[in-house]
Amino acid sequence: MKLVRFGPKGAERPGIIDTDGTIRDMSGIVADYGPETIGPDLIAKLSAADLTHRPAAPEGSRIGAPVSRIGHFIAIGLNYADHAAETGAAIPKEPIVFSKAPSCLSGPDDDVLVPRGSRKLDWEVELAVVIGERCDYVGKDEALSKVFGYALCNDVSEREYQAERGGQWIKGKSAPTFGPLGPWLVTADEVSDPQKLSMFLDVNGERRQTGSTETMIFSVAEVISYLSEFMVLEPGDVITTGTPPGVGLGMKPPMFLKAGDTMRLGIEGLGEQNQKVVAR
Amino acid sequence: MKLVRFGPKGAERPGIIDTDGTIRDMSGIVADYGPETIGPDLIAKLSAADLTHRPAAPEGSRIGAPVSRIGHFIAIGLNYADHAAETGAAIPKEPIVFSKAPSCLSGPDDDVLVPRGSRKLDWEVELAVVIGERCDYVGKDEALSKVFGYALCNDVSEREYQAERGGQWIKGKSAPTFGPLGPWLVTADEVSDPQKLSMFLDVNGERRQTGSTETMIFSVAEVISYLSEFMVLEPGDVITTGTPPGVGLGMKPPMFLKAGDTMRLGIEGLGEQNQKVVAR
Repeated sequence: MKLVRFGPKGAERPGIIDTDGTIRDMSGIVADYGPETIGPDLIAKLSAADLTHRPAAPEGSRIGAPVSRIGHFIAIGLNYADHAAETGAAIPKEPIVFSKAPSCLSGPDDDVLVPRGSRKLDWEVELAVVIGERCDYVGKDEALSKVFGYALCNDVSEREYQAERGGQWIKGKSAPTFGPLGPWLVTADEVSDPQKLSMFLDVNGERRQTGSTETMIFSVAEVISYLSEFMVLEPGDVITTGTPPGVGLGMKPPMFLKAGDTMRLGIEGLGEQNQKVVAR
Repeated sequence: MKLVRFGPKGAERPGIIDTDGTIRDMSGIVADYGPETIGPDLIAKLSAADLTHRPAAPEGSRIGAPVSRIGHFIAIGLNYADHAAETGAAIPKEPIVFSKAPSCLSGPDDDVLVPRGSRKLDWEVELAVVIGERCDYVGKDEALSKVFGYALCNDVSEREYQAERGGQWIKGKSAPTFGPLGPWLVTADEVSDPQKLSMFLDVNGERRQTGSTETMIFSVAEVISYLSEFMVLEPGDVITTGTPPGVGLGMKPPMFLKAGDTMRLGIEGLGEQNQKVVAR
């Protein structure tokens, strides 16, 4: 199933994309998609619903992030060997873990806002994983069974805040609109192999990132298992798993986003995002 | 007011400490204390309630963390000059910001669990701030007006995970039970000056940390204002503001916690915590 949330920012309703591509309003079945509802029961409830009886969403509805309120927004750094190389960093021996403020969550086509005084705004197309069951010391073999679904994420980053303002990456990863997620939360049963998904990102119509989850250093299963040694993962937590090469910081000379720029990005089977960069 | 949450883990009810020190059950007035309810309206609602009409909590009730579900659990590193010195770090020029997994939140007297294979478990008594209103580019002068209340926090840390496993501190700050908070969430009107609070921490009855929020490098107001440049703070977010000297890592030789150890800690006006260290 492809889960979406549609409607004005802050007042989104849960929906499902039916076989015709129409968004069906599921708010009569479940209040919302979030930490309180995400899990195996939600899959059962949605699967049992007859979509032909659910109202269609209004034409042209805005699409929001497919999760209402993130519990924990975790991110993995330098998880593609060639991206690590382009930033001048060594290949990590263990996953690099940081977090994004939950308040940075944004719709897939919402504007990306340039923080005041920002000079190094950058893009990162990434595969995000939404956790469906509690993970506490979960082995690699069972890790994928804990995934509720997958979504496209732009891990928007401010490189100066991230690396030149005192050491921890969270500062450059957390501004409002820095976490566009969606359009869809695709349930895990529809993603046969999360390590075989092609991905791309264009800036102003020019291809900047081309990659595949095949070249991840630490697979989705390894990342979940690893994280669960250090913290408990809960239903609704989002893990964005790192970006392939082609970010602005890695270009010679580096190129950063400015107001008026556009981004288009996608992952095979998970849909596309289109964002405009706007000054605050 | 002193807000508490009492009852079994995961099923706590909201309460208030009355003038006799009795916990009054406020669940007839508000569902819980959390991101959905924290804010000026909650203060108004609780202030208007006649406590003599609210039932007393059962004798010997367990006290949980005073916030039901943290939106974002933010922490400030090396925010006391003498603590920075004892860890061998330079005085930071800007606040060091990291986060703790929301799932590490724990009651003030719950056991602290040693992660499997952990060898460097450490303590940190800290003043935590609970945000009451949205903060987006908030100036220093107005920052304290956005504080809902204050609470005691033990920023439990695993130093090997924090510093020797790949660079970002979140790994050593997030294990289950690493975030004891409470016993009380003391509303801001009862804390006349958050920069004049004495604090202590004992391990096995021996005083290890003695300090005062007077010696913070970046004040609570400065921390809130600074954070709001990098991310939006939301009602219910918790910021723990750093620890004074006396942590295990700073001792010569370093001393770490092991199963069977006890911790007792407190901050002036915010109550005390008592924890036992237990193996997983």
